[in-house]
Amino acid sequence: MVRDISAVDTMTENVESFRQLSPSEFFYRNKEIAGFSSPSRALYQTVREFVENSLDATEVHGILPNVVISISREDSSNPNYFTVSVEDNGIGIPSNIIPDAFGRILYSSKYKFRQTRGMYGLGAKMAILYGQITTGKPFEIYSSTSRSNKIFYYKLSVDIRKNEPIVFEEGAWEKKTSWHGTIAKVTIEGDWNKRTRDYISVYVKRTAIIAPYADITLIMPKFNGEQEGNGEEESEIVCYKRVTDKLPVPPKETKPHPLGIDLEMLKMSISESKNKTIKDFLMKNFQRIGEKKAEEILKIAGIDFDRNPKNLNDKEIEALYKSIKSVDFISPSPDPLSPIGEELIKIGLKQVLNPEFVDAITRKPKSYGGHPFIVEAGIAYGGKLSENLDEIARDSIKGQSGPFIALLRYANKIPLLYDEKADLIWSVVNPDDFNWKNTYKLDPSDIVVVLVHIASTKVPYKGVGKESIAQVEEIRKEVEAAVQELARRLRKYIVKKRKREEAEEKFRIFLKYIPEVAQNLAVFYDGVSPEERKKIAQELESTLKAIAEKKVKIIEEVKEE
Amino acid sequence: MVRDISAVDTMTENVESFRQLSPSEFFYRNKEIAGFSSPSRALYQTVREFVENSLDATEVHGILPNVVISISREDSSNPNYFTVSVEDNGIGIPSNIIPDAFGRILYSSKYKFRQTRGMYGLGAKMAILYGQITTGKPFEIYSSTSRSNKIFYYKLSVDIRKNEPIVFEEGAWEKKTSWHGTIAKVTIEGDWNKRTRDYISVYVKRTAIIAPYADITLIMPKFNGEQEGNGEEESEIVCYKRVTDKLPVPPKETKPHPLGIDLEMLKMSISESKNKTIKDFLMKNFQRIGEKKAEEILKIAGIDFDRNPKNLNDKEIEALYKSIKSVDFISPSPDPLSPIGEELIKIGLKQVLNPEFVDAITRKPKSYGGHPFIVEAGIAYGGKLSENLDEIARDSIKGQSGPFIALLRYANKIPLLYDEKADLIWSVVNPDDFNWKNTYKLDPSDIVVVLVHIASTKVPYKGVGKESIAQVEEIRKEVEAAVQELARRLRKYIVKKRKREEAEEKFRIFLKYIPEVAQNLAVFYDGVSPEERKKIAQELESTLKAIAEKKVKIIEEVKEE
Repeated sequence: MVRDISAVDTMTENVESFRQLSPSEFFYRNKEIAGFSSPSRALYQTVREFVENSLDATEVHGILPNVVISISREDSSNPNYFTVSVEDNGIGIPSNIIPDAFGRILYSSKYKFRQTRGMYGLGAKMAILYGQITTGKPFEIYSSTSRSNKIFYYKLSVDIRKNEPIVFEEGAWEKKTSWHGTIAKVTIEGDWNKRTRDYISVYVKRTAIIAPYADITLIMPKFNGEQEGNGEEESEIVCYKRVTDKLPVPPKETKPHPLGIDLEMLKMSISESKNKTIKDFLMKNFQRIGEKKAEEILKIAGIDFDRNPKNLNDKEIEALYKSIKSVDFISPSPDPLSPIGEELIKIGLKQVLNPEFVDAITRKPKSYGGHPFIVEAGIAYGGKLSENLDEIARDSIKGQSGPFIALLRYANKIPLLYDEKADLIWSVVNPDDFNWKNTYKLDPSDIVVVLVHIASTKVPYKGVGKESIAQVEEIRKEVEAAVQELARRLRKYIVKKRKREEAEEKFRIFLKYIPEVAQNLAVFYDGVSPEERKKIAQELESTLKAIAEKKVKIIEEVKEE
Repeated sequence: MVRDISAVDTMTENVESFRQLSPSEFFYRNKEIAGFSSPSRALYQTVREFVENSLDATEVHGILPNVVISISREDSSNPNYFTVSVEDNGIGIPSNIIPDAFGRILYSSKYKFRQTRGMYGLGAKMAILYGQITTGKPFEIYSSTSRSNKIFYYKLSVDIRKNEPIVFEEGAWEKKTSWHGTIAKVTIEGDWNKRTRDYISVYVKRTAIIAPYADITLIMPKFNGEQEGNGEEESEIVCYKRVTDKLPVPPKETKPHPLGIDLEMLKMSISESKNKTIKDFLMKNFQRIGEKKAEEILKIAGIDFDRNPKNLNDKEIEALYKSIKSVDFISPSPDPLSPIGEELIKIGLKQVLNPEFVDAITRKPKSYGGHPFIVEAGIAYGGKLSENLDEIARDSIKGQSGPFIALLRYANKIPLLYDEKADLIWSVVNPDDFNWKNTYKLDPSDIVVVLVHIASTKVPYKGVGKESIAQVEEIRKEVEAAVQELARRLRKYIVKKRKREEAEEKFRIFLKYIPEVAQNLAVFYDGVSPEERKKIAQELESTLKAIAEKKVKIIEEVKEE
């Protein structure tokens, strides 16, 4: 394995050859960083990406989502080719944009200051690429906007070297109905095993928990233990019906917050600005900058209010940048955020887990580095909860040493299933670091479901696969505060419950002995006939019962406080 | 938080606006996926990326690396601006390539079928971008190839919108010496706290462990507990001197293995091929395909041997692809790999940890999906080990419940410090899943250092930040086998050691009682004078000692087997 340095050829011949990659080529070579690391994972990731696009195309625009996901083996000759098709009733995609929107990497509508599930505008294209490189089958899409009277069809794949779409077929039909939405269809090489099935169905289940206003249907091959599928195999159908017509408030696109921009952004927006004066530029291009604030900033930077932005030199822009970072601003507006809300979280948890206790909290908007975010959390305990846990929660619990925490992580309404242990949220709620046992009075055998949702215009994912959230102190604090509050409420419930059970137990025992006690007391009455003594005994008995009942009431009342 | 659907404005106005991002813009907007998630982390990542480039520019080309890393506060006016400069004695970069190599994202020499530390050709550019957007300072570089008689200088930054370099200054000097190499210099916003200092110094330390043939010097601001640095502060200097002249065998670039290609790759290489016949194409463009194999493949695909590759239609290429996937090949050549080797691993562990027991193993080359890889592992136990553990290993051990495993992860000779718990390697060696206690006889108080190195032309990182390795079954098996073998060897050593200790203990006790025993035995001799009895006692004593010694020897011999 080693050799002597003397044996090394002189390196004077060495010159590295360089070349440029297209974005498609880069992501195509590095699929795994977008979650396409194996046929099994690729199938899961494909479903995810299209479902998330569908929800972004509906809910965000005030439409109650109807989403149908179908996974099927292409044909018996290719048992590991799977066709994934996702249909939604969303706003649709204008036909002229379709080819670029799906055939060009880094061409997207996600690059906005607004909360959406998608962030990188990459997912669907990665699925298309993956299908193309594993099965060679092009991507198919039907789409229609509500305003259009046509349904458009495209069959395309990506020219990886040029990063542009290759359109094989396109067509249009007159619309007979008022249908609008999108049907996306891709055929990829997959691996249908129990794990794949579990992850996909759990993903859909957890999506349903957090989107009880959505109608979601999942059709997939029935997994019968064996990998290979024969031609006509059964399929498994899972439906999550809409249980409420309430939609979260959709996010509103807003201007960036001054603390959210960096020097480069400032330079770019100045170079593109149409504002006559720098003061005007500041007021028009950022939130939280009024006349006073703009003047304060410019004074510190030593720049006249009416300078033309275009004429500022680099030194001046840097001074401006530093002065922006040095002054105080109202924290970012939560308008671009769309939290789920306590009500919907509780509905979702009840609906799917059927627990004995459920509660939820939505924290006030906060921000990190100029990006607004809201942390929400839900908690569920007891009842039929443990039977209703999904496979992934069960697996996670196996590794723990009680009290057991089943964590449901969400970011911008996306369930996060992989890399739990690397996630900021787990680092807060895990039983080793969060004192569920002593501080919050849980038994070692208790199972608690904790749901945490982070909504932000910029979720600090650790990777484009969107599976775990990086350590950001501001977010960490909020998650901690939210879960602590819910844990306190749960403790209150549990303590009260235990007290009641004890009191009832005491009472039961007491009642059992009352007759006997009454008898014995009655003995002390001398010079009375047996009948009278019996009567006395009965009177004593009822008095004692009255006392006992009163006593229990008092216990109850004490507990109420 | 919720509103009634009836209140929703009709979504007929909704149309998403789309736009194209340049690669620079994409990575600039998503720095955190490349590890630039905070000023502290960015400082660490910057050092990493430049050091890795330096090692790729030396070792890979048969040069014993000399690397000098220097981190310093730019000036007292900007206490959190840090200048990172890394100098190496590598092959240098031809001057005409420099601007693109550092000013264009996805333009790189890393995109080859060969093991290198860098994989995405992204790191250095991300550092340059990060400096540019936080401090506005351009990147500076001095470089000279061994063949050139000039040293070239460039001062540049990245035009993010256009993804092309902006050169502010350039120059060239006559070379007085035979110096060749590169000096890269970037100024970024950082955060110099204990954590930053620890991560950077541990990164360099662990690099030294695995590269004992390198001379590495790290100069950084002394961390004196307080964050803000005054103008003239002290600096801390750490040197790792070269302890061997042996270099690992450098990787050789090879043709791809048939199982490593996908349909798209096949189409691309066919469209670019200059081969007259498809048979020739197969033999010339892939490893492990000889005449027989080529003919076998083409027979199955039903394609004539002398067809011109350019004339194959998609259906035929797909048939060819399927037939390639259906036949058997010799597993990929390990030529493009450069493992460290057992000898260097042992040297490194001894040098830095000074343990009582050390061993290492380099497994045979294996492959996953056509990518060759080699797993190596080292193990260290006892001695001064626990004192010499680095901060990060200590933190990791705190969370464990003994026996304690300090894991040193490496991929293509890069130390991996973040996201340990999400890493394939940890999932194998962690004390909950790997039975260190019962199977391998470690005490709950024992500390063992486990080093695992994965060398591959394609390390399945979970993200471009290169911090944790995804679950790949083939790799997992190899890691397990390697660590099990070393654990067995360690157990043998420990068991033997304990046996010896017990035997010695027994002997000591035995010796203690011998005189007494001797006395008592001597009593049984009747009719002898006290002097004689004394003599007898002494004789008995020495005989008994002899027996005892013999007994211990036997125990020793038994243990030897």
